[in-house]
Amino acid sequence: MPYVSPPSDVTREHAAKRLAALATPPGALGRLGELGVWFAACQGRVPPEQPDRPGAVRLVIFAGDHGVAAHGVSAFPPAITGAMVRTFLAGRAGVSAVATAHGVEVRVLDLGVDEDFDDLPDDVRAALQAHKVRRGSGAIHLEDALSATEVRAALDAGAAVAREEIAAGAQVLLSGDMGIGNTTPAAALIAAGLGLPAAEVVGRGTGVDDEGLARKVAVLEAALTRAGERVADPIETLAALGSADLAATTGYLLGAAQDGVPVLLDGLMSVACALTADRIEPGAVAWYAAGHRSTEPAQSLALAKLGLEPLLDLGLRLGEGSGAVAAVPVLRSAVALLRDVALLSELGA
Amino acid sequence: MPYVSPPSDVTREHAAKRLAALATPPGALGRLGELGVWFAACQGRVPPEQPDRPGAVRLVIFAGDHGVAAHGVSAFPPAITGAMVRTFLAGRAGVSAVATAHGVEVRVLDLGVDEDFDDLPDDVRAALQAHKVRRGSGAIHLEDALSATEVRAALDAGAAVAREEIAAGAQVLLSGDMGIGNTTPAAALIAAGLGLPAAEVVGRGTGVDDEGLARKVAVLEAALTRAGERVADPIETLAALGSADLAATTGYLLGAAQDGVPVLLDGLMSVACALTADRIEPGAVAWYAAGHRSTEPAQSLALAKLGLEPLLDLGLRLGEGSGAVAAVPVLRSAVALLRDVALLSELGA
Repeated sequence: MPYVSPPSDVTREHAAKRLAALATPPGALGRLGELGVWFAACQGRVPPEQPDRPGAVRLVIFAGDHGVAAHGVSAFPPAITGAMVRTFLAGRAGVSAVATAHGVEVRVLDLGVDEDFDDLPDDVRAALQAHKVRRGSGAIHLEDALSATEVRAALDAGAAVAREEIAAGAQVLLSGDMGIGNTTPAAALIAAGLGLPAAEVVGRGTGVDDEGLARKVAVLEAALTRAGERVADPIETLAALGSADLAATTGYLLGAAQDGVPVLLDGLMSVACALTADRIEPGAVAWYAAGHRSTEPAQSLALAKLGLEPLLDLGLRLGEGSGAVAAVPVLRSAVALLRDVALLSELGA
Repeated sequence: MPYVSPPSDVTREHAAKRLAALATPPGALGRLGELGVWFAACQGRVPPEQPDRPGAVRLVIFAGDHGVAAHGVSAFPPAITGAMVRTFLAGRAGVSAVATAHGVEVRVLDLGVDEDFDDLPDDVRAALQAHKVRRGSGAIHLEDALSATEVRAALDAGAAVAREEIAAGAQVLLSGDMGIGNTTPAAALIAAGLGLPAAEVVGRGTGVDDEGLARKVAVLEAALTRAGERVADPIETLAALGSADLAATTGYLLGAAQDGVPVLLDGLMSVACALTADRIEPGAVAWYAAGHRSTEPAQSLALAKLGLEPLLDLGLRLGEGSGAVAAVPVLRSAVALLRDVALLSELGA
């Protein structure tokens, strides 16, 4: 796998100097100042270019089913995964609405949904399933999620998708998720990456009750026990505890870092994959910023480990990439400040 | 002064029903769900109309100088007020950049700047000073900020400005501030409104050092002592402790509430005036949402009293209305969700 180079230190210093030279009180731009400097370093350009052209910000939603969903870990039945994929295709989901409002392109891919979408027109179905790895993923407390071959296929698929999006003009990439039961494998990736027990990483997802939460903890405990020392290796972790959609998301985030395109992360799934990507290629995280704080405890734990602090905390627990999309205008505010505010020197001060 | 009617309860219930009927898990939209319902109630329309036409979101920056600025309460000299007004007019300030990025109209008005702007073209100067009340405002630890006549003129001016903006197509109004030293009278309005001592409401503004902070506390203590029991009346409070720009901002916020146009509040100055507006017309706050949490402690105290929780917390301490402008896309995300997401019933579920 190609090496990840960090964003340019020289550009970062240059951008920090521009920030200090703006006609604003020192530090007055707060996190927007830091964010603009990071983005400039990622772009290698001062001032940074505003990512507001059509197609400049692109979200890919990786959809897949999860064997654990048949074991009472979710408030929703697995059939919802496919139904929501159809809603994304129709542009009527939550993230569709927010993405349209902020000029973000949305693409949905079936990496591991447990159905064939036979009802869809051939061209739509072909595009949706262009990178499909398998139907569903193994129930991680009973069996591996993926074979070693499938993990490699999913990682490669994700990286290829990132490159397709970059070729289409992406200046910022976002990742989104759809898959009933996916918070369980995502929490497993974080437990594995941080060496934490199940009870510390499990949350209520889209809304399980107390019994469901206890089942989730039990499933995750069994999964971590089953995986054993394999969790020391991030690729083995994806095979044992992940899924096709999460492995592809990890590949996508790695591809973005390898090709030097900054990413706004979303919630639990996105951050679990970012953590895994950074385990595979240490330093990949330098290309990522956190869009939104999840209500899931594991996301905050992983973000702390990665040294990231979310831009937004609006109590969203919709998934789909919605938290990342909602944070896009915050990034644009940061770029506007670093790019368009007068320099003190221009004001003759 | 006209009575403030609350946003429509009927519409609010109707909007809450639509929110519950969306094809999203219950509660998954978090604060964006609540915000969309509030905005629909303010508009009296379900789904709400997206405020994304040119001119639909309008910021007015009320500029003025403050007698206390000559007494060591700010990190900057008073001449900066006029210099920044010129930077707004040139569209090169921090808020100008963020407003352009998010399609927000910006208007700056000189309510009480301590200069005449003789160098500006006649038409620019006439527009800038159309509502000017006086040059500067009294040093509140030594004398009243304004006469009773000036307070009335400033309140009326602000309300007239709100009406002008609404006539120009405003669906959302924002208030911004510019005035070296203005965090001292703003903190005074909050101390008066909440019955708190100076030490609890004073912060560092754009960056005073420890000595400056001590001077600010002393000035504010003297001002509160001087005002005495007059702080029980909000109009008297504006005369004793406010300023022309803060009184006009209060009138503007009252005008918005009276005319039923929702407001996104900014930082300390905006919230101090919202608190004062709600003291003058109890219930006005129902028309306001909080855009950004200030680093000034008084803002959080006033927001808690008003029952508002900011949408953003990005460490901005730029003033100018920048926190409100940065929050505009959050409002648009909320409207997009309530407006454009499929209903469960439409999906045949």
